[in-house]
Amino acid sequence: MKIQCEVSYDGTLFHGFVSQKSLRTVQKEIEQVLEFIYKDKVRIYASSRTDAGVHALGQVFHYDAPLDIPLKNLLNAINSRLPKDIYINHIKEAHATFNARFDALGKIYHYKLHLNEYLPLLRNYVHFYYKRPKLDLNKMMEASKHLIGTHDFKSFAKVSDKEDTVRTITKIDFLIDQNDVVIVFEGNGFLHNMVRIIVGMLLEVGRNKVTPEQLKEILAQKNRIYAPKIAPSCGLYLMKIFYEK
Amino acid sequence: MKIQCEVSYDGTLFHGFVSQKSLRTVQKEIEQVLEFIYKDKVRIYASSRTDAGVHALGQVFHYDAPLDIPLKNLLNAINSRLPKDIYINHIKEAHATFNARFDALGKIYHYKLHLNEYLPLLRNYVHFYYKRPKLDLNKMMEASKHLIGTHDFKSFAKVSDKEDTVRTITKIDFLIDQNDVVIVFEGNGFLHNMVRIIVGMLLEVGRNKVTPEQLKEILAQKNRIYAPKIAPSCGLYLMKIFYEK
Repeated sequence: MKIQCEVSYDGTLFHGFVSQKSLRTVQKEIEQVLEFIYKDKVRIYASSRTDAGVHALGQVFHYDAPLDIPLKNLLNAINSRLPKDIYINHIKEAHATFNARFDALGKIYHYKLHLNEYLPLLRNYVHFYYKRPKLDLNKMMEASKHLIGTHDFKSFAKVSDKEDTVRTITKIDFLIDQNDVVIVFEGNGFLHNMVRIIVGMLLEVGRNKVTPEQLKEILAQKNRIYAPKIAPSCGLYLMKIFYEK
Repeated sequence: MKIQCEVSYDGTLFHGFVSQKSLRTVQKEIEQVLEFIYKDKVRIYASSRTDAGVHALGQVFHYDAPLDIPLKNLLNAINSRLPKDIYINHIKEAHATFNARFDALGKIYHYKLHLNEYLPLLRNYVHFYYKRPKLDLNKMMEASKHLIGTHDFKSFAKVSDKEDTVRTITKIDFLIDQNDVVIVFEGNGFLHNMVRIIVGMLLEVGRNKVTPEQLKEILAQKNRIYAPKIAPSCGLYLMKIFYEK
């Protein structure tokens, strides 16, 4: 039986999603709980490999269940055993061939900025930008339009030379509520560090270090050397993954 | 020179404000930084002794500075050395007789409820209430009106027999934004655990275990035995302390 789960987590205390020897990762915590429940090793496969500090409200993973357990019981059994910084939102049976990574049609990420004084309670959940000059949000919005569409995003990713770096961004929206800014990214997929590098460079535009036109040229260069900035991981949220109905 | 500071902190990783041997407390962290800066022991005195897990956006403390340091330099020196879960919002010179605790004229506390499914990112910052029956917020508001005014709040406090337990609550407001409810308490002072016990009992009213009329009777009993509930500390925020201008 193929199981599909949507999971939320607070990335603060994890070394990212994917298992790494002796480090605390989301995958390891979930697999330990599943092994306890099924009394058998279970490997989970996630749609996105979020980095250390990155949060998720709608990460999706799948696994092959060694046993059939009624889904509601299963959901309660998993959630009651997971640490408090991980929570399974939904669980369902998927088609036998379902793959959380390869079947994803689109994704939404949010990047959260706080444009005012430091607040200890938000230290792990936003990127504080409270320096001079004040950010020019209009310039950032203007620059972001150059990234919409299907492009080779090699300049904005930490990738090997052989990787296919063409992706489609369908939307970059700015939700502004006084000093809180959420930049919404929607696309068919995002390369490693792509959202954080784009935000890092949009902040350069907002600080008048890079013009919107220059951002367009950086995209055309297809070389990370022209986009050296990266925004901190704590502002990034994986919000939603889309699949065929 | 008498110094008055307003401080924010995330209470999650502290055993409360007041120093306790070998435990991490807000007071200890601040005093360590002040000792480093002044090269001398400095004792700070806070307006309110917040418990473990309780947050503050506007706690106030005072101390006698062994040296005169320009306030802006001092603020930067302290904040750059404090751990990331404490932040001094403001610093100023106070009258020589100023006392953060005894001069306080009023205080505002917030208690945050989240009336929907568990969210790992909010686990340390709200009290989740997602059970059946659904909370009857109107009943809670009705009950809260019985607490407004000057009363002996002995039923709603963890206090010794000798303590003066008369306090004045000037306001209890409910700010409701979909599933987020903030209960605002304003008064001339609050006894130990008073806000959390009141919230604990208001939740009993919301669940129809206690009627608003019974809450009024519990107040009149002046005995904690009738108010056995206490809401978790993570939902409580010390927001603001008022002094004479």
